[in-house]
Amino acid sequence: MKYKLANRASTLKASEIRELLKLTEQPEIISFAGGLPAPELFPVQDITELTMRILATEGRQALQYSTTEGYLPLREVIANQRMKLASVDTTSDNIIITAGSQQGIDFCARLIINDGDYVICEDPSYMGAINVFNMYNVNYLPIPMDDEGMIIDELEKTLAKHPDAKVIYTIPDFQNPTGRTMSIERRKRLAELAAKYQIPVMEDNPYGELIFEGDRNPAIKSFDADGWVIYLGSFSKTFCPGYRIGWMCADSELISKFVMLKQSADLQCSTIAQREVAYYLRDMNIDSHIKEIIKVYKNRRDLMLDGIKKHFPNNIKYTIPAGGLFTWVELKPEIHAADLLVEALKENVAFVPGGAFFPNGGNTNYLRLNYSNMTEDKIVEGVERLGNVLKRYY
Amino acid sequence: MKYKLANRASTLKASEIRELLKLTEQPEIISFAGGLPAPELFPVQDITELTMRILATEGRQALQYSTTEGYLPLREVIANQRMKLASVDTTSDNIIITAGSQQGIDFCARLIINDGDYVICEDPSYMGAINVFNMYNVNYLPIPMDDEGMIIDELEKTLAKHPDAKVIYTIPDFQNPTGRTMSIERRKRLAELAAKYQIPVMEDNPYGELIFEGDRNPAIKSFDADGWVIYLGSFSKTFCPGYRIGWMCADSELISKFVMLKQSADLQCSTIAQREVAYYLRDMNIDSHIKEIIKVYKNRRDLMLDGIKKHFPNNIKYTIPAGGLFTWVELKPEIHAADLLVEALKENVAFVPGGAFFPNGGNTNYLRLNYSNMTEDKIVEGVERLGNVLKRYY
Repeated sequence: MKYKLANRASTLKASEIRELLKLTEQPEIISFAGGLPAPELFPVQDITELTMRILATEGRQALQYSTTEGYLPLREVIANQRMKLASVDTTSDNIIITAGSQQGIDFCARLIINDGDYVICEDPSYMGAINVFNMYNVNYLPIPMDDEGMIIDELEKTLAKHPDAKVIYTIPDFQNPTGRTMSIERRKRLAELAAKYQIPVMEDNPYGELIFEGDRNPAIKSFDADGWVIYLGSFSKTFCPGYRIGWMCADSELISKFVMLKQSADLQCSTIAQREVAYYLRDMNIDSHIKEIIKVYKNRRDLMLDGIKKHFPNNIKYTIPAGGLFTWVELKPEIHAADLLVEALKENVAFVPGGAFFPNGGNTNYLRLNYSNMTEDKIVEGVERLGNVLKRYY
Repeated sequence: MKYKLANRASTLKASEIRELLKLTEQPEIISFAGGLPAPELFPVQDITELTMRILATEGRQALQYSTTEGYLPLREVIANQRMKLASVDTTSDNIIITAGSQQGIDFCARLIINDGDYVICEDPSYMGAINVFNMYNVNYLPIPMDDEGMIIDELEKTLAKHPDAKVIYTIPDFQNPTGRTMSIERRKRLAELAAKYQIPVMEDNPYGELIFEGDRNPAIKSFDADGWVIYLGSFSKTFCPGYRIGWMCADSELISKFVMLKQSADLQCSTIAQREVAYYLRDMNIDSHIKEIIKVYKNRRDLMLDGIKKHFPNNIKYTIPAGGLFTWVELKPEIHAADLLVEALKENVAFVPGGAFFPNGGNTNYLRLNYSNMTEDKIVEGVERLGNVLKRYY
């Protein structure tokens, strides 16, 4: 390249997997690859009504510039409604509106991480967060997981050995990519360790409200007495992703820094989109809407797990997610999931090879399957096709 | 602060001016401080029609996730329509959609600038760009201006002395804050110097279509044969700012890096907003809409300049902008514009003290006046009030 760029530019690499996954957008493909919500569930009628009302009664304000921290009634209803559901007692002063929780991840990294810092996360973790951290050439301290999420004894050992680690990134509910959920006991201990080691925790929670079994888990933030936890929320899975509206809930000292970052990054989120979400939360029934989503996704998860049981080789391991969008499949160590994807694409079925979710690489024998975005018949058909491809390897 | 943050966090400082300017949001204040377009000109009726059509015919796609580089029909119409108006011959492959041109500034800085790099810009320049560059602790090489914009002989001297300078940031049309426009001859020379010194140019152009006198100037990018110029565009002043839709036009090697940055920063811009803007450009008449805006703003500029002539001290200097949103006033060197603002606020009139626009500080005897956002009677009244305050100093 002829341009003299910043050092960080060398971390921005095209990925083979990303190129392969572009193929999955063709309509003939049954894709378990993305993390997309089911568009047939978007509340289009409610959104049409709200938009008409906003444009008719306050169109000029809704299309004008607005405050960087976000629309106050939206920040209020998030504090009083969504954060309360997560057992977090907070106010609008501790909320900033972000362009999805992805922007929250980016802002946390910008505010906290110097080049070469240590970052703690689950092993595996969300690829979109790993890509953010990679821009800072961080050193990862990945913590192994079991069916109760990040193993906190391992976290404790890691913190004792690396008290200079800069941040802990975690997805406690229906984790991406594994679908696993952190137990309440571990959440408490994680919050205690954060306070003890004075290390900020990024609690990324885009899926926590999509619960198939049991109650809403209290957020790690609910056990955080001293402001070490930064909670990242999103409406992409409970309302719709197209508006790009999420939020952060954090100590007000941090919020004021995030506001300055947002001012430089993009001034503010869409004014009208913030009003739409605020009025949807306030005037419509989001909780019954979420119940609808849960009903559909739970059924799709069941169909996928049934299909795996029926059509995948017998000795294969997979997670049973109690909510969210993903299940996680472990293959024999000698199978390379990227090769499997090439074969699967020949049968018009797709998934994400799991290697890219491991911050330090390796682990090529996993795959992530999404069940939220395909219709029931496609899930049944696609899992059977994938099973047939897999059986050639066993 | 108890948190161990990144080094760059120390550059995020609350500003006294920003605090003062918060006062200007009260309704009794006649404010020449912001850079807001006139909301009474927003095409609310057209937007209502378009939104209804989109939600009725393609609502589910418009609310779903979409591609990071942006909606293809929007990128196409920008290339074929807006870039053509700026005399730039390009295609959708060279366009990425950004959250306003502010995000374009941020992405350029992230891609190009290492800590401590030299940055060349006009003296004074846009505060929102200076805030972005400050995060990298850059060293500024500010180039003086005259009525034809950045003085290119001075730029040439600076480049000869600092061939390692990393980027040139410029606002060639109706510059913020001065309202000045770079001559065509200088645009050519700037493009030549960029190629000679192999230095990228950020051509920030949010105002170029709001022309009171003369024709649209060819963009610096139109003289750029080798891909050194990154053009930053915006719909905030020609359509409405609430949607946060802008774009970058650049060499495709750079575009592919910007796409990776966008993926990490916020995944994508609002799906529905991109469709609204695309269909507005394609199916409605943006050019006659812009003519309406120009008519109103030109009249407001005239009222402001008339008021300055009538009510400001005789020997005061100010620019006569041929387009855009701002005029720029130079006071006696001993007057501190921030003190003047305190006095002006007592008379319920506001402006931005000019010091904050100078990357290396100083120059406290300037003020920026916006004429796009206040109604005609308020402009007449406000300029008279400000003149009365000013006269106390002369």
